[in-house]
Amino acid sequence: MSWQDRLHAIQTNKAFETFIMIIIMASALLVGVKTYAVPSSVMTVVSVLDVFITIVFVTEISIRFVACHPRRHFFRDPWNIFDTLIVTISLIPIENSDTALVARLVRVFRVLRMISFVPELRILLTSLLKALPRLGYVMALMFIIFYIYGAFGSLIFNQVNPVLWGDIAVAMLTLFRVMTFEDWTDVMYETMEVYPWSWLFYLSFIFLTAFAFLNMVIGIVVNVLEEEHRAADETMTNEQLYEEIQSLKSLIQVSNSRQ
Amino acid sequence: MSWQDRLHAIQTNKAFETFIMIIIMASALLVGVKTYAVPSSVMTVVSVLDVFITIVFVTEISIRFVACHPRRHFFRDPWNIFDTLIVTISLIPIENSDTALVARLVRVFRVLRMISFVPELRILLTSLLKALPRLGYVMALMFIIFYIYGAFGSLIFNQVNPVLWGDIAVAMLTLFRVMTFEDWTDVMYETMEVYPWSWLFYLSFIFLTAFAFLNMVIGIVVNVLEEEHRAADETMTNEQLYEEIQSLKSLIQVSNSRQ
Amino acid sequence: MSWQDRLHAIQTNKAFETFIMIIIMASALLVGVKTYAVPSSVMTVVSVLDVFITIVFVTEISIRFVACHPRRHFFRDPWNIFDTLIVTISLIPIENSDTALVARLVRVFRVLRMISFVPELRILLTSLLKALPRLGYVMALMFIIFYIYGAFGSLIFNQVNPVLWGDIAVAMLTLFRVMTFEDWTDVMYETMEVYPWSWLFYLSFIFLTAFAFLNMVIGIVVNVLEEEHRAADETMTNEQLYEEIQSLKSLIQVSNSRQ
Amino acid sequence: MSWQDRLHAIQTNKAFETFIMIIIMASALLVGVKTYAVPSSVMTVVSVLDVFITIVFVTEISIRFVACHPRRHFFRDPWNIFDTLIVTISLIPIENSDTALVARLVRVFRVLRMISFVPELRILLTSLLKALPRLGYVMALMFIIFYIYGAFGSLIFNQVNPVLWGDIAVAMLTLFRVMTFEDWTDVMYETMEVYPWSWLFYLSFIFLTAFAFLNMVIGIVVNVLEEEHRAADETMTNEQLYEEIQSLKSLIQVSNSRQ
Repeated sequence: MSWQDRLHAIQTNKAFETFIMIIIMASALLVGVKTYAVPSSVMTVVSVLDVFITIVFVTEISIRFVACHPRRHFFRDPWNIFDTLIVTISLIPIENSDTALVARLVRVFRVLRMISFVPELRILLTSLLKALPRLGYVMALMFIIFYIYGAFGSLIFNQVNPVLWGDIAVAMLTLFRVMTFEDWTDVMYETMEVYPWSWLFYLSFIFLTAFAFLNMVIGIVVNVLEEEHRAADETMTNEQLYEEIQSLKSLIQVSNSRQ
Repeated sequence: MSWQDRLHAIQTNKAFETFIMIIIMASALLVGVKTYAVPSSVMTVVSVLDVFITIVFVTEISIRFVACHPRRHFFRDPWNIFDTLIVTISLIPIENSDTALVARLVRVFRVLRMISFVPELRILLTSLLKALPRLGYVMALMFIIFYIYGAFGSLIFNQVNPVLWGDIAVAMLTLFRVMTFEDWTDVMYETMEVYPWSWLFYLSFIFLTAFAFLNMVIGIVVNVLEEEHRAADETMTNEQLYEEIQSLKSLIQVSNSRQ
Repeated sequence: MSWQDRLHAIQTNKAFETFIMIIIMASALLVGVKTYAVPSSVMTVVSVLDVFITIVFVTEISIRFVACHPRRHFFRDPWNIFDTLIVTISLIPIENSDTALVARLVRVFRVLRMISFVPELRILLTSLLKALPRLGYVMALMFIIFYIYGAFGSLIFNQVNPVLWGDIAVAMLTLFRVMTFEDWTDVMYETMEVYPWSWLFYLSFIFLTAFAFLNMVIGIVVNVLEEEHRAADETMTNEQLYEEIQSLKSLIQVSNSRQ
Repeated sequence: MSWQDRLHAIQTNKAFETFIMIIIMASALLVGVKTYAVPSSVMTVVSVLDVFITIVFVTEISIRFVACHPRRHFFRDPWNIFDTLIVTISLIPIENSDTALVARLVRVFRVLRMISFVPELRILLTSLLKALPRLGYVMALMFIIFYIYGAFGSLIFNQVNPVLWGDIAVAMLTLFRVMTFEDWTDVMYETMEVYPWSWLFYLSFIFLTAFAFLNMVIGIVVNVLEEEHRAADETMTNEQLYEEIQSLKSLIQVSNSRQ
């Protein structure tokens, strides 16, 4: 058994996998603990654990890299690149007070290893990402609606409340707020005092976005169902059955005429 | 007719069932009445009724237990365990002023007997519970999203508002509030004063959770529909029909060749 | 042509139908106009129009009643009862200042004649009402959840804020507010100051109701789709096709054995 | 190659299309830039770009018009009318300070050329518009519900808060706010102080509209799915297969009887 095979055996070992899972969970827990104002004694333990976790992660990635047969295949799997990146970044020593926050923030991403390690979560995320492009053009249409209403809003209501309608970016944020129904009437009543007809602006916007959103959701449901149907029916359709029966008929007619 | 059979006859008696249903409803009503500031005379009646209801419940459970043929089968039905638990707990005499509240709270659970007594509600609850595991991994993914954003939020916005972002637990509660769109702009505007780019934090979080939630719902709908389809189609598929027609063909061909 | 037939001819006359539709719309418009502070001159016109509309409605109902062949069949159609009720009630003369509001309120219901007169709206409402019983048990389950949480809330949080949690009825209204996410964090933060763990109360409630609601919606969608499927497939199933092919087979086998 | 063919060649040229797309995007960007308080030097550049974009748009429309073979067919495509309208309106010189805002607002509509230029967005919008009539009667029913509750609200709650319930129009806006759950409890608590039973008004309204909305969504989903089904099944149904098998049977019976 070669050196590489032995590493591969370790990697696929159930106990090793469980150990790594526990370490990933511990690292996620540490991320949470660090947000509390813990006494310095606990903080020391946390730091030691942090170093330990980093060592384990580096070791694990190294094992996986070395065990991968044609080594250049290792970086073909995006999850491997992702893991390597997260582990490498958390290696950089930035522990002076100024950049301590950055170091902490980077370590938060270690929680994402939970997704890359559990196959079910990986599949779920992949299927979520696959559903994303389907939304592409509807998102573009939504953005155009937001952009036009944002331009109108910032041109007309600019004087009413510059904080909400100062420029197109701020206006689009305000419109997003209106779409989530978050105190949208406060925004409306304010502009209605100057422009009494402005309720039309808000209601038309709400209807447009709600309608576009509704159609998007329905479109996705129908899309997904159709795909399922096609997958289920592709082996045999009623048409094909019909043709089979036709060929049967001609066979019998031949049989009849021959008698 | 044995003693046991007689009890079983009582248990399945329509009048007895109606009587128990009325008692369950009365106990539910009493729970409501006790939340009002009623005069002490009414309170006395309520106390008497309470004792009466407890006696009826104990009797009913006893009858059901004795009537159950192999008695150890009684506790195989989780609803029986549930009923026994509720009735037993409300037997414990905790009537001194300190624990009066606890006694009252425990009696609230008696309302749940409504579910255990009406078969339709029992089926509904069972089907709800069956749908739960389907959500398992999406819930896990949601939790990871919450955890990462919570860690970021508590690390960065800690100084801005410790009440909302003090530690990861509080930050996750704040994020849940943002997800329900409850005054989320107040939370955002506050942090935007210190970190002007923080709208990106909130919008990305809203999009991520809304997208994951949407996919979860669609996934469940498709799942349920597929199950229904499979149940409907499992008896006969087009493929099987095709094979039947094929065997027909060969039969006719044999017939033709033999002539 | 009998007197009755002539009335029936009037009733189904296109011009007559259009005229009644215009009158119904005018009566709906009047309802709206009366909510404005109009000058007394306009009010006089409105009063005259009101009397005119009442006369037209009475005449129309009378024609419909007399034209209906076995007259007792007239009240078999619930829409006829509905129309007669609305028209009759608005006949009662209650014009002294005290009951003027009641008279106005009663006339608002005339707008509902729009639904009873347009067949498409009538069908829509009927299908909506048909979907209602499907929700029955889920509504019951929802009510039990509300009742239990309401009892708990009013028992525990009574001292914190009697306006929101005073008794079970008020508590259930507060819970409905929480379910609609309307300033629910204000309610929660208030009780969390006294009972820090009370976020669990709100979050579990939100999850329970949202989950029950989600399942209800999915259940209805699946239900409706199944019904459509059954309606489409009931004429011929794959099983029946299979049996047909089986009988074909035996026919051919007879044919083969006989040769 | 005729003059017209040459123009058509230009129009369908990939480089030309890309150029026009860039110009449309630039015009959209300018719309956004103008909402910011930019220094006058930048404003001059913007003005020059504006003139340039207008010239390009006029040229492009002219090329499309001249290249269109039977020229009167040009205005059969609603998108062509739309483009011509937008370009023509932005030609009108209204640059004095009073009407500068109007000129700016008109130019915002240029962003809509993004939709008319990208085929995918055009198809999406067309399919959205096609889904609109399906909602027709439900929208009518919703409007009747709003109208009746609006009339009731403005008649009863008029004295409580004239700003929210002054007349039927304002009351309907308030009801729309209640439907979006936007601070609806504030509205309710206010009227409950005078009319304690008024929670019934709001809850019944919320249930009615939510239920109608839910049914509308489900109706659309079922509608869309049915259409897909019909499109998939219209070529061959089980019934037709059954009839084929029947004709087969009679053929075989003839064959058997003849032997």
